[in-house]
Amino acid sequence: MSTATTIKFLQKPTSQAWLEQALANLDIVLLDHSHCERKAAGVALNLMFRYPAHTKLVRSLTAIAQEELEHFDQVNQILEQRGIPLAPLAAPPYGASLSKQIRSPEPDRLLDALLVSALIEARSHERLGLLGTHCPDLELAKFYRGLMASEARHYGIYWVLATTYCDRAQVDQRLAELAIVESELLSTLHPEPRIHS
Amino acid sequence: MSTATTIKFLQKPTSQAWLEQALANLDIVLLDHSHCERKAAGVALNLMFRYPAHTKLVRSLTAIAQEELEHFDQVNQILEQRGIPLAPLAAPPYGASLSKQIRSPEPDRLLDALLVSALIEARSHERLGLLGTHCPDLELAKFYRGLMASEARHYGIYWVLATTYCDRAQVDQRLAELAIVESELLSTLHPEPRIHS
Repeated sequence: MSTATTIKFLQKPTSQAWLEQALANLDIVLLDHSHCERKAAGVALNLMFRYPAHTKLVRSLTAIAQEELEHFDQVNQILEQRGIPLAPLAAPPYGASLSKQIRSPEPDRLLDALLVSALIEARSHERLGLLGTHCPDLELAKFYRGLMASEARHYGIYWVLATTYCDRAQVDQRLAELAIVESELLSTLHPEPRIHS
Repeated sequence: MSTATTIKFLQKPTSQAWLEQALANLDIVLLDHSHCERKAAGVALNLMFRYPAHTKLVRSLTAIAQEELEHFDQVNQILEQRGIPLAPLAAPPYGASLSKQIRSPEPDRLLDALLVSALIEARSHERLGLLGTHCPDLELAKFYRGLMASEARHYGIYWVLATTYCDRAQVDQRLAELAIVESELLSTLHPEPRIHS
């Protein structure tokens, strides 16, 4: 899991068990990936709705939302090429459990929302990297590697936004707390194969 | 109001009173325009969340959401150049009143949502066209005209989606009903200058 060691936000690297589960269920993981990209665009847009006067946040998240929609479209094209129809898919508990960590009062709410997104992006980056390295379908592996460049930037952008609007010491402390929760959530493999199972 | 006559969806053209109000309040209209583009992206994304297995809808609305975000970014850059800070702005009753026309049971809900979006896009297209023709600030007028090409396609796409998922006779009848409501909502000028006042 050499990719994981370079992603400093993550408290623990992804398990071998997840990689095996994902490689054995590439079609479902691809469909779930489509849902993830749409959700990521939705999260960015929701933050822009909540903080319409935070100029730097609005500017940065517009770019992220655009990229997520571009990836969403790319994944959907691959699904179509492979004859996998678009379909709803039950989400794993990961996203909702992380969202529960977001405290309600401001400015905690903004800090937590940005750091939760940073962690999700960091984990996505790590896992797409693993698929890009280990996927036996070379076309798919190339696609996953192709996403890495921009995905890699996203978690950095969320972290920079957190340090823009919040005190650096607070950011570091809260990130450490949330990173433990994030890794804990993935410590038991979800029975259904997902990007975040 | 020669632009209006070319937009067959609209039951009545925009009044001279709106144009005068808008031209006298270009800064506020520009800020409201930013909010409109973000909301339009949000509406497209919400429909993609609601109908994740409607392939044609997902494909078309991904493209629309991307364009709306591009326009949102362009408007925000112009605001920045003009020293107008991003800020919340109370919405006029137009959007919420139109949304109330969307019936809850399917397939009416999908039909109504697509036609309400078609009408809003058609009205935006008409009004940006009026600003592009009559705005005395030539740089701003050029910007409004620049948006026309893609804005013009959006209401057509929503209409095509309606005819894709619903019976053509039903589409025609419901569009006629909603178009009357839409024009009626704008028959009294909202006191605050907005794209849809």
